[in-house]
Amino acid sequence: MVRSGYDEQLDRLTGALAVMSREATAAIRGAGTALLDVDQEAAELVVQNDAVLDQLRGDIEAAVPELLARQQPVASDLRLVLCAIRIAGDLERMGDLAVHIAKIVQMRYPNMVVPPPAAAVVAEMAEAAARIAEKASTVLATRDPLTAMQIGLDDDEVDTAQSRLLSLLLSGWQYGVESAIDLALVGRYYERYADHAVNVARQVVYLVTGTIRL
Amino acid sequence: MVRSGYDEQLDRLTGALAVMSREATAAIRGAGTALLDVDQEAAELVVQNDAVLDQLRGDIEAAVPELLARQQPVASDLRLVLCAIRIAGDLERMGDLAVHIAKIVQMRYPNMVVPPPAAAVVAEMAEAAARIAEKASTVLATRDPLTAMQIGLDDDEVDTAQSRLLSLLLSGWQYGVESAIDLALVGRYYERYADHAVNVARQVVYLVTGTIRL
Repeated sequence: MVRSGYDEQLDRLTGALAVMSREATAAIRGAGTALLDVDQEAAELVVQNDAVLDQLRGDIEAAVPELLARQQPVASDLRLVLCAIRIAGDLERMGDLAVHIAKIVQMRYPNMVVPPPAAAVVAEMAEAAARIAEKASTVLATRDPLTAMQIGLDDDEVDTAQSRLLSLLLSGWQYGVESAIDLALVGRYYERYADHAVNVARQVVYLVTGTIRL
Repeated sequence: MVRSGYDEQLDRLTGALAVMSREATAAIRGAGTALLDVDQEAAELVVQNDAVLDQLRGDIEAAVPELLARQQPVASDLRLVLCAIRIAGDLERMGDLAVHIAKIVQMRYPNMVVPPPAAAVVAEMAEAAARIAEKASTVLATRDPLTAMQIGLDDDEVDTAQSRLLSLLLSGWQYGVESAIDLALVGRYYERYADHAVNVARQVVYLVTGTIRL
């Protein structure tokens, strides 16, 4: 009876992380739409939905000490419970970063944040970031270390795209300083988003293998 | 005998966090010197010393699951152990952000990153960030919630300074797009550094009171 309550608590924990990872993915997709289609409604939705991530992170943080104190899990269950806190932290930050992007769109609306010469590279960054988030969700669900390792490649793509964006801004950018700063920050937000998604995958690998390095 | 080993483990944990918070403070002070005095040696030192923070974070992350499994702490000890992971994560990120600032100095050397018109506001941001870090160290050592609450005010100062820096960059900035992007990112790094220091204090308040909000 106690044991089944325990399994239920662990299931709730992993269930909450799965919801968070879906929300974090939806957030970065929404932010990309907002950014590239100058879509104010998409931006607003990203901002509003962030409360879900904040709430779930809070729930997880409240549940973990209780679960540890009552159930005193060991070995892989203990690792799961400890990782849950960190994974929830990463997923919540991913939501925040998507919100930062959405808010730049709102701040500049009806003007575009991404002028035509930067559209391709920003689209690439947005796509790679969303793909990493999706893989992180998959890794969370399947705990497959191979998928986790592939995430490193997608992360390189984000970093490369960010470098190209910066080069573009530094070679005769015609859209002014404000636009250059906006885009440099957008690049930074995508980069950090991707880093956190990589962390999620890394934590799952730790869960499975007990070692942290990818 | 077991109990004394346990207390020793907890002491080692808080000791490691104290060292980390000193290192994170030294890092942001060093980054500020590097930035404002165009001091390449200071920059190099910040980059090199970051390994200490990485190492200590790793040590703490390795120690916590073992401590939980062996000692099964409860109540405030359990909170301490859980918080240690998150505080170590925040302190390690603070070091990374100081390194980001130092690396911008290295990248532009011998040119200055902060042209004269931005010197005052960047100095203010650097000073406020270092002050927050120092208070976070104090909070870690004393667990005094009142000092923790004061940190919010310093954090407001960083945010206000960052807004002023951005306004400056957007009103006829004469030093080019690259310089504007550098400074926008520097502002962002200080802001995030301060956020993490606030998180450290917030965790300590949670340790003391069991509630997380400042």
